[in-house]
Amino acid sequence: MMKHNFSAGPSVLSDFTKEETAKAVMNFAGTGFSVMEVSHRGAEFQAVVDETVELIKELLEIPEGYSVLLLQGGASLQFYMAPLNLLAKKAAYLNTGVWASKALKEAKLVGEVIEVASSKDKNYNYIPSGYEVPADVDYFHITTNNTIYGTELESDPDVNVPMVADMSSDIFSRPIDIKKYDLIYAGAQKNLAPAGLTLVIVKDAALGKTGRTLPTMLNYQTHIENGSMFNTPPCIAIYAALQTLKWYKAQGGIKEMQKKNIDKAKILYDELDRNRLFKAVVPNPKDRSIMNICFVMSEGNEALEKDFLALAKERGLDGLKGHRSVGGFRASCYNALPKESVQALIDAMQEFESKH
Amino acid sequence: MMKHNFSAGPSVLSDFTKEETAKAVMNFAGTGFSVMEVSHRGAEFQAVVDETVELIKELLEIPEGYSVLLLQGGASLQFYMAPLNLLAKKAAYLNTGVWASKALKEAKLVGEVIEVASSKDKNYNYIPSGYEVPADVDYFHITTNNTIYGTELESDPDVNVPMVADMSSDIFSRPIDIKKYDLIYAGAQKNLAPAGLTLVIVKDAALGKTGRTLPTMLNYQTHIENGSMFNTPPCIAIYAALQTLKWYKAQGGIKEMQKKNIDKAKILYDELDRNRLFKAVVPNPKDRSIMNICFVMSEGNEALEKDFLALAKERGLDGLKGHRSVGGFRASCYNALPKESVQALIDAMQEFESKH
Repeated sequence: MMKHNFSAGPSVLSDFTKEETAKAVMNFAGTGFSVMEVSHRGAEFQAVVDETVELIKELLEIPEGYSVLLLQGGASLQFYMAPLNLLAKKAAYLNTGVWASKALKEAKLVGEVIEVASSKDKNYNYIPSGYEVPADVDYFHITTNNTIYGTELESDPDVNVPMVADMSSDIFSRPIDIKKYDLIYAGAQKNLAPAGLTLVIVKDAALGKTGRTLPTMLNYQTHIENGSMFNTPPCIAIYAALQTLKWYKAQGGIKEMQKKNIDKAKILYDELDRNRLFKAVVPNPKDRSIMNICFVMSEGNEALEKDFLALAKERGLDGLKGHRSVGGFRASCYNALPKESVQALIDAMQEFESKH
Repeated sequence: MMKHNFSAGPSVLSDFTKEETAKAVMNFAGTGFSVMEVSHRGAEFQAVVDETVELIKELLEIPEGYSVLLLQGGASLQFYMAPLNLLAKKAAYLNTGVWASKALKEAKLVGEVIEVASSKDKNYNYIPSGYEVPADVDYFHITTNNTIYGTELESDPDVNVPMVADMSSDIFSRPIDIKKYDLIYAGAQKNLAPAGLTLVIVKDAALGKTGRTLPTMLNYQTHIENGSMFNTPPCIAIYAALQTLKWYKAQGGIKEMQKKNIDKAKILYDELDRNRLFKAVVPNPKDRSIMNICFVMSEGNEALEKDFLALAKERGLDGLKGHRSVGGFRASCYNALPKESVQALIDAMQEFESKH
């Protein structure tokens, strides 16, 4: 039976990524050693880091003046590291969910924080609009995709201050207007690599302005100056990331991934809007995530939830259970999820509808 | 040709670790998915974390009252995190090398630091003795093995305060008297796993005494309360670590590993003391590391260094070049390095001697 991986993260990776990584675990770059046991300072692994950084710059069209860093600790460590490096006095945050709230909480340890808007009133099922970002803040922080609730910013907002963004769950899903940002960070375990790698894209000129003495490892400058090799990097996760990046390039790049993602999301949202047994969690189409598609049983059919999960399991549809704070189902449709998997889910939904 | 991995880190892992990890990259625990793409909250991966923690406790005989954490960021992040959590007023540090100095530097950002002794005067080629640790410090920090210089503490020191130790490069090489320590931390990329995982063993009762408000991710309590799953852990590195731990158990445990390590180190140091062309960097046998064995060409034979490296390469002996701050050669003989590899190095040294 074909299995379909709808996991919210860590999540589906391309067959190419898996196969190449498995090979390198046994024999890396013809060295006879595993990618897990070679020096990160050897020529073979340095080439991996260099190519990874170059491909990220190429695929995301990162302009001059930005550094690409390969770090550890996940977005959760960035919640603190970002303000520590960039917040001199005051920052503005958009509260679109639990992760955004956590980012906001850590920033408060560093300086003054203004929550410009929140969608907490409706369990974060929409992206706030019509808010104003004060002109005197150091940055405006956004979470571009909210994995738990299935909301996503349509595009890079237009504001009059530099932005800082947690893009953990939608980076590489669409082109980004990088120059609007002082900092972008992303846990790699959705669209890039296994867990254990954190991607940081930082504008060099934005650093060094807080007057703060920073711990060495929490200072972006440390990692810029050392090419992400101040200490031993997470080598195997970086190797896997490189394979994914190569696969993206072979697939036609990020615009092509976006096209495929929009297509996958459209057929699933269309089915959710049509099928009388199911209902999308996010009402406003413009706020709907193309990465994490959350849905519940429609009114009156709540009791059927367990039965549908059972059918999904029978059909090889894995990882569909929704987050406990939303309930229902969540189909995470990251870049590496083939359209066939989405179609298999739609088929199961239609089969279920015809039965009930 | 058989290849021998003397790399200082990331470094040699057992064939069992490599083979099992390669398999799980393609199909983890019969799920049909890669260990890189399954949810860290799924039953299959939770079992990996649980077994990893249990085996660490069993193999290191960790008493009640200690927590075992699986974190990210390497020892370098612990240089800051340790004092942040444990240094209320004052701490004492033993300076046995560059890594110890880095630990000391980060601690100074947090509180008062006393360097009780240093071996910097002789490029760290010995372990200081006869120093006194003030009774009023919060802890005494040591680096049990100094990878670059090839020195190692013979055993856990006896002092009148709790200890904090960086054991990155010799953890699992010998039994540890855990109760002497409030905290032990180790980057996993020597005797445990690929880079990207940091092992922390912390005494629960030592925490919460500084009165400091801690950033969430830098607070050990966060990770204790969440079973190292506050955010997504480095899953594949943890999986590989578990395979190494299983292999240790099958090999007879840590005392058996120590016996093998002492045996490997003895035959190599004996050869260094005998062979007229080579000389051990660390003069005092009791300070010599059993993990990283540093040596240079003997006086008058310095010009032969390149030739020996070339011969070593021909014989499949890899990773022998010494750190730039010491020069010469470094044979890292971690747990997973078979005695055959050490013997192959000795054979090459004897062949070289007979030629010159």
